[in-house]
Amino acid sequence: MALGKDYATQQCSIARALEIVGERWTLLVVRDALYGVRRYNDFLVHLGIPRAVLATRLQALTVAGVLEKRRYQESPPRDEYVVTERGRELWPVLRSLGAWGRGIPGALPLREFRHAACGTPLGVLGDCPVCGGLVPLEEVEMLPGEGLDPDPADPVSRVLLSPRRLLEPVVIESA
Amino acid sequence: MALGKDYATQQCSIARALEIVGERWTLLVVRDALYGVRRYNDFLVHLGIPRAVLATRLQALTVAGVLEKRRYQESPPRDEYVVTERGRELWPVLRSLGAWGRGIPGALPLREFRHAACGTPLGVLGDCPVCGGLVPLEEVEMLPGEGLDPDPADPVSRVLLSPRRLLEPVVIESA
Repeated sequence: MALGKDYATQQCSIARALEIVGERWTLLVVRDALYGVRRYNDFLVHLGIPRAVLATRLQALTVAGVLEKRRYQESPPRDEYVVTERGRELWPVLRSLGAWGRGIPGALPLREFRHAACGTPLGVLGDCPVCGGLVPLEEVEMLPGEGLDPDPADPVSRVLLSPRRLLEPVVIESA
Repeated sequence: MALGKDYATQQCSIARALEIVGERWTLLVVRDALYGVRRYNDFLVHLGIPRAVLATRLQALTVAGVLEKRRYQESPPRDEYVVTERGRELWPVLRSLGAWGRGIPGALPLREFRHAACGTPLGVLGDCPVCGGLVPLEEVEMLPGEGLDPDPADPVSRVLLSPRRLLEPVVIESA
């Protein structure tokens, strides 16, 4: 990881975590993976990220055990990247970062998150204020917020317009 | 912020948060500020960060409202950087990132965090599993963990060896 050398004197677990997820774009790749994005091209169009950067990030996240490469087609061979248990554990980081980002002047909520079982909006920490405790990702419902473009150009954003659960695979119909 | 341009198509609040706190070193500066570090030289020796980078990060965090510059000495003029309410709201991000970092192979806990009122170790989200809810920062007790160097070279690390509350100002005796 490129940050390792600079953070060498920082044994702190925050610094070690940043060696893995602190690089530019990395947390947005993880965010998309938690939203159900699995395929290289889907990350590419949704993030608008340079190809080489995306390839490097997917590789590094796979080495770090955050994503797992799975063959989904044999001929020609094609892999997808599925978020692991270790990757799911990053949800509280992303949730709290997103909640903090909403406080930036001019920010509009793009997505709302609710506990599917009771319909309660998630707390800042990804917890359910009514049921208590961290809501399992499969029970988190993601809905469009008022800031979301209702007519996006890329197919991944279009899939993500509909209410859905976290981790539910994004499937794009081939043209 | 340097990341702004690359994240321009990302209106998501996570992406917007990363424009502010996603740069190399920035979250470690915020971590230190929450640990009570306030002065340029103290950040410098504790982080082992290049001077120019530290100055840039402190400036950017002040502009973003995460830190507030306060004059503490008039002659010669000296300022310190105090974490704001907006900066305090980053604690759940750092706490969850640190909790995640502990799962990296080979990691040893450097610090333990407890709810001072009841002595319970904090949950992954900075919550108190016994009392419930996010523990206010002033009520978080920080203790040395087994991985912490018991005889560190820099004076800030020496101050941070003793049990103390988050936000309690780090005061270094001048030689």
